[in-house]
Amino acid sequence: MSKLSEKPATAIIGSGFIGRAWAISFARAGSSVRLWDQQDGAPEKALDYISGVLDDLARNDLLNGQTPDMVLARIKPAKTLEEAVAEASHVQENTPEVLDTKIKVFQRLDAAAPPEAVLASSTSALLPSRFTEGLKGRHRCVVVHPINPPYLIPAAEVVPAPWTSAETMERTRQFLISAGHAPLVMKKELDGFIMNRMQGALLEEAFRLVADGYASVEDVDIGIRDGLALRWSFMGPFETIDLNAPGGVRDYAERYQGIYENLFPQMQRRVDWAGAVMDTIEPERRKHVPADRLQERQMWRDKRLMALAAHKKRAAKEIGN
Amino acid sequence: MSKLSEKPATAIIGSGFIGRAWAISFARAGSSVRLWDQQDGAPEKALDYISGVLDDLARNDLLNGQTPDMVLARIKPAKTLEEAVAEASHVQENTPEVLDTKIKVFQRLDAAAPPEAVLASSTSALLPSRFTEGLKGRHRCVVVHPINPPYLIPAAEVVPAPWTSAETMERTRQFLISAGHAPLVMKKELDGFIMNRMQGALLEEAFRLVADGYASVEDVDIGIRDGLALRWSFMGPFETIDLNAPGGVRDYAERYQGIYENLFPQMQRRVDWAGAVMDTIEPERRKHVPADRLQERQMWRDKRLMALAAHKKRAAKEIGN
Repeated sequence: MSKLSEKPATAIIGSGFIGRAWAISFARAGSSVRLWDQQDGAPEKALDYISGVLDDLARNDLLNGQTPDMVLARIKPAKTLEEAVAEASHVQENTPEVLDTKIKVFQRLDAAAPPEAVLASSTSALLPSRFTEGLKGRHRCVVVHPINPPYLIPAAEVVPAPWTSAETMERTRQFLISAGHAPLVMKKELDGFIMNRMQGALLEEAFRLVADGYASVEDVDIGIRDGLALRWSFMGPFETIDLNAPGGVRDYAERYQGIYENLFPQMQRRVDWAGAVMDTIEPERRKHVPADRLQERQMWRDKRLMALAAHKKRAAKEIGN
Repeated sequence: MSKLSEKPATAIIGSGFIGRAWAISFARAGSSVRLWDQQDGAPEKALDYISGVLDDLARNDLLNGQTPDMVLARIKPAKTLEEAVAEASHVQENTPEVLDTKIKVFQRLDAAAPPEAVLASSTSALLPSRFTEGLKGRHRCVVVHPINPPYLIPAAEVVPAPWTSAETMERTRQFLISAGHAPLVMKKELDGFIMNRMQGALLEEAFRLVADGYASVEDVDIGIRDGLALRWSFMGPFETIDLNAPGGVRDYAERYQGIYENLFPQMQRRVDWAGAVMDTIEPERRKHVPADRLQERQMWRDKRLMALAAHKKRAAKEIGN
């Protein structure tokens, strides 16, 4: 544990959007970050981007009182993967979602990283057992799946392979907490992990409501954006129902399961998201945001997300969590 | 339409939590509100409660620059249902979720309200066709289902019976917008409407994840509260995926449906929410919030919700919607 209180040295493998976002999060928490990408010059490009984000974070008081330069100084490019991980105690891998790539990269990581280093993958789609089984150090391999960008969205899923050690899970959990994250520690691996399963269940019903002509795309977004997600964004769904019946969550289940029960048989039919329904959804979305303004809208999203993160920090301090 | 620009007179039938919350919302928007409850003295009690809420709303700059007294002055108790609706152009019914009660109340409302008044029910569980079919004025009957409290949560579902007129739907939509609400206008009635169907789909998977031992109750809440619901709370799920692939929502569906597809067959099995899984969920929730502190926690929830509503208002002005 002493290692942890000393702000563990970290290595980021792959300097794309997820890798550079982790670099910001780890460096903000006081860790040194070695940034490597198989493409020459990519880490330097990432540093320019990171520097811009750090200025925005400072403006929103999201650097824990540090200056952008203090945080930026902790992030250094590495010439090779081996150099990047040489002194790391937490390695975060962010290469493309291709099984073969993950297998090869993890072989290199296991060979090059110090024996006590945790080797974490950001994969959202591959179970850790699929690319770590053959490794000597497979007990220290784990998935740490973020929602982008992790420097604004605290949740991160920690997913063990069957052979991931309890110590690896605990060290990863504590490292993430010390970096300001909110880890979801899974008890065993499962397709989609936790967040994508809940998102998938909600999306599937949303697609079905549009496909069956009950709701427009905008109706669905209003129902979440101006409705359900307001409470969910600071309580989650279980605390929401726990506070929605006088006797708490059991009282809620006993009172209201009947309302939902009849719905589930109607929710079995699949809808092909990319099929006919998309000819309704895409034009409606493009009316709101034309294709050539999607990037601009993504910048709007990131501004709103940053303002929301700042609000939640203030509200937690003033009203409590 | 001129009627609408004049701030329609409203009547609230039933002064419980939902009725008094609608009264705040309608009066804040400039409408006169007549408040009736079958229990003598209940509307007066509701006014005391409303007065306290108006002070909180003023502190959070959520009264559109008005003073609490200006808003409170627009809300008046009525001695009888007939007196309450005599001059209303929008009637909002909030009696218990008992079919027989709704049928009887809507008969009285249809007999007593001016012929052009819209008769709206706040029911969350009953389809409008079940309690309006026999009425002479059934064309003006509709469900307007809020999420409590509507003075903080804009979304409201507008659900037609097969015989609800297009004019009723359009007047209701415009009235809600003029009152600062975000209406979801359904094309036809459906069990659970839109929001409870999406909440039900997400909750069912959440209960299953806990029942199968993959996640704790807190893991699920973290995954939404510190993860998915951050973007959902200002974009909704469709805009979220529209901005999560370079080519927009169709690109997202084509790239990522494969990740979700394998999950849906695993999501068919029902979980009894009040069954064995509740013996895991309830103790975990009670560790966070003991039974005797649920009310206190509800007050915390309402403070956080008010602060979030104020934040969203500011963010929309400064960053855009």
